[in-house]
Amino acid sequence: MSKEIKDKITKMGSDALTASRALVNLTTDQKNKILLAMADGILSDADQIISANAIDLDNAVNNNLTNSMIDRLRLDQKRIEAIADGIRQVATLPDPVGEIMDEWERPNGIKIKQIRVPIGIIGIIYESRPNVTSDAAVLCLKTGNATILRGGKESINSNIAISDSLQNAGEKAGLPENSIQLIPFTDRESVKHLAEMDEYLDLIIPRGGAGLIEAVVSMARMPVIKHYDGICHTYVDSECDLEMASNVVMDAKTQKPSVCNALETLLVSEQIADTFLPTIGKLLSEQQVEIRADDLSRNLLGVDSVEVKPDDWKTEYLDLIVSIKVVSDVNEAIDHINHYGSHHSDCIITESETNANQFMNNVDSATVFWNVSTRFSDGEEFGFGAEIGISTDKLHARGPMALRELTSYKYLISGKGQTKA
Amino acid sequence: MSKEIKDKITKMGSDALTASRALVNLTTDQKNKILLAMADGILSDADQIISANAIDLDNAVNNNLTNSMIDRLRLDQKRIEAIADGIRQVATLPDPVGEIMDEWERPNGIKIKQIRVPIGIIGIIYESRPNVTSDAAVLCLKTGNATILRGGKESINSNIAISDSLQNAGEKAGLPENSIQLIPFTDRESVKHLAEMDEYLDLIIPRGGAGLIEAVVSMARMPVIKHYDGICHTYVDSECDLEMASNVVMDAKTQKPSVCNALETLLVSEQIADTFLPTIGKLLSEQQVEIRADDLSRNLLGVDSVEVKPDDWKTEYLDLIVSIKVVSDVNEAIDHINHYGSHHSDCIITESETNANQFMNNVDSATVFWNVSTRFSDGEEFGFGAEIGISTDKLHARGPMALRELTSYKYLISGKGQTKA
Repeated sequence: MSKEIKDKITKMGSDALTASRALVNLTTDQKNKILLAMADGILSDADQIISANAIDLDNAVNNNLTNSMIDRLRLDQKRIEAIADGIRQVATLPDPVGEIMDEWERPNGIKIKQIRVPIGIIGIIYESRPNVTSDAAVLCLKTGNATILRGGKESINSNIAISDSLQNAGEKAGLPENSIQLIPFTDRESVKHLAEMDEYLDLIIPRGGAGLIEAVVSMARMPVIKHYDGICHTYVDSECDLEMASNVVMDAKTQKPSVCNALETLLVSEQIADTFLPTIGKLLSEQQVEIRADDLSRNLLGVDSVEVKPDDWKTEYLDLIVSIKVVSDVNEAIDHINHYGSHHSDCIITESETNANQFMNNVDSATVFWNVSTRFSDGEEFGFGAEIGISTDKLHARGPMALRELTSYKYLISGKGQTKA
Repeated sequence: MSKEIKDKITKMGSDALTASRALVNLTTDQKNKILLAMADGILSDADQIISANAIDLDNAVNNNLTNSMIDRLRLDQKRIEAIADGIRQVATLPDPVGEIMDEWERPNGIKIKQIRVPIGIIGIIYESRPNVTSDAAVLCLKTGNATILRGGKESINSNIAISDSLQNAGEKAGLPENSIQLIPFTDRESVKHLAEMDEYLDLIIPRGGAGLIEAVVSMARMPVIKHYDGICHTYVDSECDLEMASNVVMDAKTQKPSVCNALETLLVSEQIADTFLPTIGKLLSEQQVEIRADDLSRNLLGVDSVEVKPDDWKTEYLDLIVSIKVVSDVNEAIDHINHYGSHHSDCIITESETNANQFMNNVDSATVFWNVSTRFSDGEEFGFGAEIGISTDKLHARGPMALRELTSYKYLISGKGQTKA
């Protein structure tokens, strides 16, 4: 089995390279036409996709998956339509490929252009939700990249049906063969082969839990862009509009607690703790938010709370739980965030421009907010139209990773026979 | 020993983090003042540095290093002055940190700014030439990064003397402690610890031979930016100015054959092979260039040549040797380059804009030239002032890697209490 898997994945790499060489030559119009054909294809293949999904759902029940996991797995007509809408949406977005990033002439007359080009071949390793198959493939296609997908075993039948549908419908509209390929194996070994195949893959993006990301980082020989935890903080500064602070904190914690840009830790300046904490305590309590707080905060909150443990500061709850700490000033807030945070999204609520600048310059996170809920840390909210993830890395892409971040660049230099001698 | 090395390197990582948090707050003026102080420091420490270098030179002789290796290792007053000049030069370059890359407002009134920031902590692993210690450290400092250097054992005494001099002189002008650190161990194990220390290091750059790069890629858990071989091609197209073609080819091959942007393989269109090859054959032969060619070329060259072997197409000679092949057209040239090349720098000589565009769009290399010698693939020639290397990767940095490529970015978002709900 091992050699069969390896040979098959290597062949996919080689086929993807052929596809990527052809994809470079597609115009934006051609790519958009292909995308629209794919959206139509997904709709006309809806029955097959739903049948394939039914097998995954049966397996899920047999394997005792939780109801929420089964729900994430489920595809119905409405969800298939949402997938098709998502593809059409990507067709409307501006194409970054070919964009001139910079252009200048040297004193010797050589002209230098820096232009955006596709990265080449991108591997996407993901878990559970089958719509990622389409989301990832179409963003890669829009940017002229070939894709090798490797989804989780829970959704393998749905994933195969979706990727086949996309590639087949696309080919009829001019998509090169093997532009979108899905690895039909779901064991860990197939991830290993993919992650080691740096002769073909230019980039690998793991989308999933910390275990998956850690495994890919350990094995990968090519660049990995990671989306680790979102341990997001909001610091309520001494000089602030307390009503705004309450609104933003409640939004960040309770509007959708299950997502990476939701608030996990609230830091409160000791100078306003005695007025702010009772207010926010009441609001959090009304929304059934479990409070884990330090002693200073617990004395002031005026509602039930439990003692915070050291591990809480580095926990992404993704739930109606919040940790709270009183800090002496903006500098202690910055230190806490840089030490315990995940460099994702953090916020200061203040009317002081000095404190805001101090916070924004020194908090080492992808996105730093001033008087705005961290829930806006999202490609859609940035106006990017769609995102493939939110990078907690600092190289190549940081924060919401959209079409532009799925490109590389090259330098084109022209002249009249200039020589160095 | 193992634990001692690991503990020491971990401590260096932790100290570098403290330094990097302070470096973020230095203004451009402060950094430039520090750089000028470092340049002065290197000059006033010249005697100590030359004494330390003498130990390395003694060891080199005892270890039977070649004369050219010993020459690369040698530091004298003139070379120390060149190091100081290099530092002053970096002080004059524009600082990319703080640059606003993009700025926009969303319909809900939140304002988004994308600004350049330091990457954080950069590890540089390099071989032999001790001036890299200074070159790398000052480019990292100019961009607000802390640096952990790990040089080769041949130059360890020189490296320690240079990095101590830089850090000490810098500190007197306001450089945070431990901004520039050099690992005093020269065994492979120290590279391993550094490459695994992703809790501190944001990026690792290996500068050296393929063996070193391969080792770092295998071990590194953080992003690696690689500078693999420069297997550079020039394709002489059917429609071209043959005199320009001769000039550019001779420049690319002979002006400095030992560097990565020198020509290794010449591809010639079959339509002009019978006129171009005898001319270039004579010129190459006059310059004592060894010619390794396919049969078609050998029949036309009119000078001595040897039969080219398959491995030649993927060899970086770095010497007065050239491989030559006749190809049917621009497409065969593109395929050859994409297959055998190293995606570094490749050139087409043509008067046909169609063929030039076909070549530039389809050759998958960092820099693609049209009627310009590949020897211009260099940060200085691009106008970047200085470079830390030439990336053959596609992520984050491609081609000459200068100050801008030593930065990351972050998003700063401000508003008036916007919430998602």
